[in-house]
Amino acid sequence: MIGEFEVIAKYFAPLAAGAPGAGGLTNDGACFTTGAGLGTVVTADAMVAGVHFLPDDPPETLGRKLLRVNLSDLAAMGARPRGYLLVVAFPAGVAEAWISAFAQGLARDQAEFGVDLLGGDTVSTPGPMTLSLTAFGEAAPDRLLSRSGAADGDEVFVSGTIGDGMLGLKALRGELVHSSEADRDALANRYRLPSPRLALGLALGERGLATAALDVSDGLAADMGHICEASGLAASLDAPTVPLSAAGARALDAHGGLGPRILTGGDDYELLFTVTPERIAEVESLARELDLPLTRIGRMSAGRGVRALDGEGKEIPLPSKGWAHF
Amino acid sequence: MIGEFEVIAKYFAPLAAGAPGAGGLTNDGACFTTGAGLGTVVTADAMVAGVHFLPDDPPETLGRKLLRVNLSDLAAMGARPRGYLLVVAFPAGVAEAWISAFAQGLARDQAEFGVDLLGGDTVSTPGPMTLSLTAFGEAAPDRLLSRSGAADGDEVFVSGTIGDGMLGLKALRGELVHSSEADRDALANRYRLPSPRLALGLALGERGLATAALDVSDGLAADMGHICEASGLAASLDAPTVPLSAAGARALDAHGGLGPRILTGGDDYELLFTVTPERIAEVESLARELDLPLTRIGRMSAGRGVRALDGEGKEIPLPSKGWAHF
Repeated sequence: MIGEFEVIAKYFAPLAAGAPGAGGLTNDGACFTTGAGLGTVVTADAMVAGVHFLPDDPPETLGRKLLRVNLSDLAAMGARPRGYLLVVAFPAGVAEAWISAFAQGLARDQAEFGVDLLGGDTVSTPGPMTLSLTAFGEAAPDRLLSRSGAADGDEVFVSGTIGDGMLGLKALRGELVHSSEADRDALANRYRLPSPRLALGLALGERGLATAALDVSDGLAADMGHICEASGLAASLDAPTVPLSAAGARALDAHGGLGPRILTGGDDYELLFTVTPERIAEVESLARELDLPLTRIGRMSAGRGVRALDGEGKEIPLPSKGWAHF
Repeated sequence: MIGEFEVIAKYFAPLAAGAPGAGGLTNDGACFTTGAGLGTVVTADAMVAGVHFLPDDPPETLGRKLLRVNLSDLAAMGARPRGYLLVVAFPAGVAEAWISAFAQGLARDQAEFGVDLLGGDTVSTPGPMTLSLTAFGEAAPDRLLSRSGAADGDEVFVSGTIGDGMLGLKALRGELVHSSEADRDALANRYRLPSPRLALGLALGERGLATAALDVSDGLAADMGHICEASGLAASLDAPTVPLSAAGARALDAHGGLGPRILTGGDDYELLFTVTPERIAEVESLARELDLPLTRIGRMSAGRGVRALDGEGKEIPLPSKGWAHF
């Protein structure tokens, strides 16, 4: 058994060693400065055991996923990450080995993404483990990306590949019975370790290239709907153009009924963004620059709501995800 | 039953209406700018039902307490509050009336303290309600208060009165049987609605008056110990000089065994700070300026640990609070 102060000193303070403003986590708060003229961009996400992660998820990737989904939100705003706060509620009897592996995962991603832990809170809970992270970034306020700037006629782009998050979760649940072990592993890895598209978000913001943007977390159609709602427009999605990974495409082929789920599955953490038609060539050039596929998958139009179209232009009914009620 | 998106639109988005950078809570994050040359100060605190608050605590004061304990951390850093993120995990079947009252309380304190909601996350949990808040402030980086700057010979001051938080919790638990109803109400109110000492923290920082500071949340002796540890020093506390409220003094008189608990009870959210002896007159002048008692209760010295002394200079054994284990 290990106590709150010991956890902070032994596992969390080392994660703050690179940030002078964190004061070794011994103060009531932390301080950091942004570049001249830049604003502070903030975002927070929570994960509850049994709701947002699998109870036997490896602790090393869990911490990294929590950090990455928040960095993905910064990417969607066009912000450069600066640091983060971590709030953990541990159930009674949490194993020290679990905490150690969790912190090791965070250390690894801190090095990869150039951020430090700045503080937070460590408490106990009689309920399930609950993890929450607040990420800080910086960006020029007039270059921030938002969901509300899309215009009628704008083209819709998405980065990377779609569906791997949903398929990875199915792989971990043992539901991809017809896939190879290598494909199941590749997909599970994408579910556990999404890639925040930070360089893309920064470029879209700095070049003023995206009229609207967000990261795909609720599902492609639902997130497209968020842009439509915020921008007061409708969108059509050309389903056959939605980019798939090789493992994802094989899994869909092998499990016939999963195709429509590509449009509603979540957890991809790719950027979905809109671009005025005159600037498509710049998007193509950016894709080469970043070595990241940026695929045109639809178009904005007057109206409301999202329509998904098949190869013959016929509407694909979108299964309702329903509402998450408390 | 009410869903996540509905809660955000109906109850939380109005709390963000005053912050242009919050985008009505429709984006992936929010943005704010600090004054020229100022750093961003960040802090987070979590509260779990059954651990950090009473299950039947009124929702209106609960939101305000969560905000105030975080503002108290900003005060302890010498920072001016700018905004906050709210992360809530609601159990199944949380009443809409509860959420409404919770948000109303936050609205009230937003007006009082001049801050806006900037974003956050709303999730469901199979466990107890879990609330967490990240507060943002601004301060000149070279004027920040910390726990580590106290020097041998510095005088120890505390703001306001001590013990009301601990006595207020006892009042709510029905343990102050010999107190009047008015005293019980006054103490319970202090427990439910601490007063973050923001003006004091700002003045201590801007005037470079405190060599070390923190807010009293773990208990007077424990928090004094934090300054000692961070500053590499010992401290003595003159127990009879610890300032009490009228209701607190009467409750202690009426319940003989509670006296020593004044040194270990938490939840006061007063500022504890150290000052070099030459500047005591400035502290006295600041107390008049702010109309807030600032009482000298001890002194820093070489060594380690905290000693509490009675009226005859004899050491009072400090009951160990023990370690909070997971």
